[in-house]
Amino acid sequence: MKNTFGNSISVTLFGESHGEYIGATIDGLASGIEINHDYIANMLTLRRPDGDISTPRKENDDYKIISGVIENKTTGTPITVLIPNENIKSGDYSQMKTVARPSHADYTAECKYHGYQDSRGGGHFSGRITAALVAAGAICKYALEQKGIYIGTHVKKCACVSDREFDNLTEDIRALNGKTFAVLDEKTEKTMKEAILSASADGDSVGGVLETAIIGMPEGVGEPWFDSVEGMISHIMFSVPAVKGIEFGAGFAISDMRGSVANDQMYIENGKVVTATNNNGGINGGITNGMPIIFRTAIKPTPTIFKPQNTIDFKTMTETVITPTGRHDPAIVHRARVVQDAASAIAICDMLAMRFGTDWIK
Amino acid sequence: MKNTFGNSISVTLFGESHGEYIGATIDGLASGIEINHDYIANMLTLRRPDGDISTPRKENDDYKIISGVIENKTTGTPITVLIPNENIKSGDYSQMKTVARPSHADYTAECKYHGYQDSRGGGHFSGRITAALVAAGAICKYALEQKGIYIGTHVKKCACVSDREFDNLTEDIRALNGKTFAVLDEKTEKTMKEAILSASADGDSVGGVLETAIIGMPEGVGEPWFDSVEGMISHIMFSVPAVKGIEFGAGFAISDMRGSVANDQMYIENGKVVTATNNNGGINGGITNGMPIIFRTAIKPTPTIFKPQNTIDFKTMTETVITPTGRHDPAIVHRARVVQDAASAIAICDMLAMRFGTDWIK
Amino acid sequence: MKNTFGNSISVTLFGESHGEYIGATIDGLASGIEINHDYIANMLTLRRPDGDISTPRKENDDYKIISGVIENKTTGTPITVLIPNENIKSGDYSQMKTVARPSHADYTAECKYHGYQDSRGGGHFSGRITAALVAAGAICKYALEQKGIYIGTHVKKCACVSDREFDNLTEDIRALNGKTFAVLDEKTEKTMKEAILSASADGDSVGGVLETAIIGMPEGVGEPWFDSVEGMISHIMFSVPAVKGIEFGAGFAISDMRGSVANDQMYIENGKVVTATNNNGGINGGITNGMPIIFRTAIKPTPTIFKPQNTIDFKTMTETVITPTGRHDPAIVHRARVVQDAASAIAICDMLAMRFGTDWIK
Amino acid sequence: MKNTFGNSISVTLFGESHGEYIGATIDGLASGIEINHDYIANMLTLRRPDGDISTPRKENDDYKIISGVIENKTTGTPITVLIPNENIKSGDYSQMKTVARPSHADYTAECKYHGYQDSRGGGHFSGRITAALVAAGAICKYALEQKGIYIGTHVKKCACVSDREFDNLTEDIRALNGKTFAVLDEKTEKTMKEAILSASADGDSVGGVLETAIIGMPEGVGEPWFDSVEGMISHIMFSVPAVKGIEFGAGFAISDMRGSVANDQMYIENGKVVTATNNNGGINGGITNGMPIIFRTAIKPTPTIFKPQNTIDFKTMTETVITPTGRHDPAIVHRARVVQDAASAIAICDMLAMRFGTDWIK
Repeated sequence: MKNTFGNSISVTLFGESHGEYIGATIDGLASGIEINHDYIANMLTLRRPDGDISTPRKENDDYKIISGVIENKTTGTPITVLIPNENIKSGDYSQMKTVARPSHADYTAECKYHGYQDSRGGGHFSGRITAALVAAGAICKYALEQKGIYIGTHVKKCACVSDREFDNLTEDIRALNGKTFAVLDEKTEKTMKEAILSASADGDSVGGVLETAIIGMPEGVGEPWFDSVEGMISHIMFSVPAVKGIEFGAGFAISDMRGSVANDQMYIENGKVVTATNNNGGINGGITNGMPIIFRTAIKPTPTIFKPQNTIDFKTMTETVITPTGRHDPAIVHRARVVQDAASAIAICDMLAMRFGTDWIK
Repeated sequence: MKNTFGNSISVTLFGESHGEYIGATIDGLASGIEINHDYIANMLTLRRPDGDISTPRKENDDYKIISGVIENKTTGTPITVLIPNENIKSGDYSQMKTVARPSHADYTAECKYHGYQDSRGGGHFSGRITAALVAAGAICKYALEQKGIYIGTHVKKCACVSDREFDNLTEDIRALNGKTFAVLDEKTEKTMKEAILSASADGDSVGGVLETAIIGMPEGVGEPWFDSVEGMISHIMFSVPAVKGIEFGAGFAISDMRGSVANDQMYIENGKVVTATNNNGGINGGITNGMPIIFRTAIKPTPTIFKPQNTIDFKTMTETVITPTGRHDPAIVHRARVVQDAASAIAICDMLAMRFGTDWIK
Repeated sequence: MKNTFGNSISVTLFGESHGEYIGATIDGLASGIEINHDYIANMLTLRRPDGDISTPRKENDDYKIISGVIENKTTGTPITVLIPNENIKSGDYSQMKTVARPSHADYTAECKYHGYQDSRGGGHFSGRITAALVAAGAICKYALEQKGIYIGTHVKKCACVSDREFDNLTEDIRALNGKTFAVLDEKTEKTMKEAILSASADGDSVGGVLETAIIGMPEGVGEPWFDSVEGMISHIMFSVPAVKGIEFGAGFAISDMRGSVANDQMYIENGKVVTATNNNGGINGGITNGMPIIFRTAIKPTPTIFKPQNTIDFKTMTETVITPTGRHDPAIVHRARVVQDAASAIAICDMLAMRFGTDWIK
Repeated sequence: MKNTFGNSISVTLFGESHGEYIGATIDGLASGIEINHDYIANMLTLRRPDGDISTPRKENDDYKIISGVIENKTTGTPITVLIPNENIKSGDYSQMKTVARPSHADYTAECKYHGYQDSRGGGHFSGRITAALVAAGAICKYALEQKGIYIGTHVKKCACVSDREFDNLTEDIRALNGKTFAVLDEKTEKTMKEAILSASADGDSVGGVLETAIIGMPEGVGEPWFDSVEGMISHIMFSVPAVKGIEFGAGFAISDMRGSVANDQMYIENGKVVTATNNNGGINGGITNGMPIIFRTAIKPTPTIFKPQNTIDFKTMTETVITPTGRHDPAIVHRARVVQDAASAIAICDMLAMRFGTDWIK
């Protein structure tokens, strides 16, 4: 498969930045699942640029669900969500058509699609497509919450400014899901935003790290070879533009530990198996152990910057210099956070359905 | 899918540590591909414990190919490789049957398989299964080499001792593939081994980081949503036991960079597009750009250590203390390196076949 | 998978009879394939009821392609086609909501979706959904024609009236594709229509047999276990509502033959291998042999008839009698013919892409 | 996928007629399912030639299960079954290597595999491979029986001799599963065998029709687009060599009926929905309705006959005449019957697992 993710529950994304609609089709969800439109709208809002530290492209993301839902309940057949592209200014991008923006997909799209790709606004590679992913993921995330499974993501680091660690996960997740700028420590927000604006003032951009926690997962979900929880989550996460790394539990830090430190010793608490540490991020042998799933992704700085950069024209195969103009984000970490929530929800729903059957989620 | 990886070329793994055979079935490879038995045997040897810093379990890994190959050429139909388990001492593990080894899959296997799992020697979760993955990957890796695509992995770090950076990739990869202990800097080997043995003397274990380079990849391979090169490689890598993180190009370090530093500026060299830096690890928008694919994985320390650890008996649901005895590796990083080579080869073959058709590899 | 068909090229269908849109997403088609809107519109027209012998529900099927196409060329990313439902009269169906129409999917939908299914007009089970399949298939069918592969389907039998046999396939297929009522023998049309109208006058309905020929197929396409040409074509055909049987080549008649009659003896004609007979329908061992692919499907009579029938109310679990009113087709065979063309084209495209790579079709 | 069937539960087949082993890997079965070796052995015996009306090639089919089973219970991880090829006489076939046997896969294998295929004894296309399918299917079929789902197949017709219709399905299925030559009417056996032997005496072969009944299926299983029950069953059935047609319920005969006859009127019997007739074969809209699933396949006469036939040498591309010698079956219908049982069981298990989760079957 190509533009479809998932085994038991699958999501297909379609659309281009400057087409009429972008959209997603979710297949395999049980019937009778409640669709909470406020919840979806809220997640879409969190993904949108906010004018403060983001690109001025504003869209209402007035999604519509054109199939698979009646009276706010899933029917059990494919759910297609459409989001119209409202604020299309193709002119901004026309001069870039054959000049590759460094670290964008312009050149690789050319290699793969041989000149037929939609290059307007990044086309199918645009971060815009993540709106459709968020809509699909919002449906899944809300459904998971009805089963006691909660997902929250914070900006662990942005522009080299770090947020505090997760502490009380239940409270932290609840707090994060109510925030526009998802940091755990209130004071971090101001510092991060200043650092972002400082880079922006330089015509530059910044990256960061997103950290996600998932609580309430049943034990025994995931497959040893090859659909491990880490394998499935990483597979979908690397589709989110700008993600260049992912780590679970202690992640790369575990590689410097000795076994006696890294091992999560086990206890019984209220009749449930728990571990003292969670260096494995809730997953052993690819399968959930009932502890929270914890992972972090590395988000690269937005590739579009307002500085001249050496690049090539792939049509003439000549070297040139590019200095983008127009609207762009100096950072996307704070927006990508809700995409990460959404993508997590999709992967988790799929793994649960594979384990317990399509109807489990209901 | 569960125990199968891949779209156009797929690999299914089966077997348990103490069963009669472990094995792999590779489906989708074109007919007429040469099988180089020395090459396969060599990769299997590299995966095996070497007695110096590894567990004394020695097996010859006398694999046999029982289908899909005639006169050392693939027929185009599924290739099944069997590897007998020779050195089986179930007794070593019998007392552990319901006492979970911390950070192993014992407890999660119980949650998923409800007491029916094969717990002898880790069963289907044993690192032993990677021998079958290596055999399958060796076939793919050799086939890729005939097309000018080379893969090499070094122990970037082990027991907190670091190897040098990749330099001349062509030479480094060639050198690595001839080495038993895969470090680029000869002097590192001694220091690393000492650090491993030091941990071993303490009854402890160590982890590390593996770094892989893939050169010769055609441009335009990979899919934007969701089968990106990063998505496919990470999916298979997280099946390798002990992997807890993966990063491409600059990886997590890119999250601290500004865009002006992170962006890979583009040039033309001998009529081919190249980038000055390779912070994106050869991949933009999930698609290869012709630069080397570079990624690193975080390998956790071997969970089995000879120190008492708190754990639980999942049958009686009581807390207990475990102090493993028997044979175990103080480190597996140096052995996992060839597994990473093999898994990479499988993912790359699959993506090439999806792009260019099954016969391309021939 | 559920609502997706295909390996290398996949089609997902979504939508309900009385929703805002029905649609299809085609993934995996190469970039640069020409989209011929007249061709698509024509196939949609052929599927539509024509007022003469069909239901009066008239819709223009003003499809739009909202992704994956620019300037009438595919971009290589998912193509989503939407078709608005214009002529929605939910009232016609409201009384049937819990009374199962015999031989319809009303009761099985209830069993599967537990009361959450969209029952208006058959919902996701409506023949209306085939319009989306036709749109997707039309894109594939036109692409195949550019490569010299032609598909044609005739109404072999309807209301017990038989058409003549295929004769000159090239000419017959060309002729069929220009006809509204696809019979090879002009005189059959009138007799068939009279038989259909006669059943209609009785408040009854009729079925028939559709026969498809595919010429120009390369040899060597298809997989022995399990994605044989027959397996893939039958899989998609049984999704077309009302299909209850499929046979290739001589089909069921071959079971009465002796081997000496059934075997297709082989010759060489103009440097190409041909067979004297084509009892295997162009397929041996699941793989194309270069002869025309020939198959027939059994189409059951439209289940909605204007006669009282015993049935049940699945909500109250009581027996009752149903006498449908409203608009319905006395036959759908002549309309299903273009659905069969379309579904064939999708399956063939997928198999070719699996064999020769995504770009082959271009 | 190619050599793998199924979504939630999958079966991969490997091996060649004259290799060391043929085999199957079953993935996705829940843990704790009982393996009944007598049951498997019995089904393998039913598939074997019996010397009376079949080829003298005798093999014990001493299968072994090398993974995924401990103490006769599934572990939940992939189950690999190996069956050794004992009675290998490659010499019989050596002269045929480039002379295509009409209606065999010799020529299409050449087209697909370009001379690298294993042509000894039909290689991967040999009916021998169905032994592995039977072993895998036997595991599934026994598991289904523990859940009250029973499958039985009879030789509905062979050599133009017909068996009686199904009557009391429970009794008929029980009787069939105990029979070597699966006909419902005892008297038919003798007549059929005589007809087979008569063809054999002429150096010729015969085909037939197999009819399968599946009882005890829960309602609501199957998917509308595209994984309908008919779609999934037909997909796997067309992999069984010699199958050229399949029909469900009334099948092709339904195409001649009027709706008022074809429609299955519905009643309530002991609180369960039933239909008066079963022209839809237990399936509406691709989904089970709780009535027995009934289908028939058309089996072509064995292509190997002892009469001279015109054919081609695909290496020299010249016309020639072939007169096979050696061991061959004048009919395989009576042996294919157990293959059809097995393949049905695999498809049914997969659909149930997709619907109710992996653990349902347990």
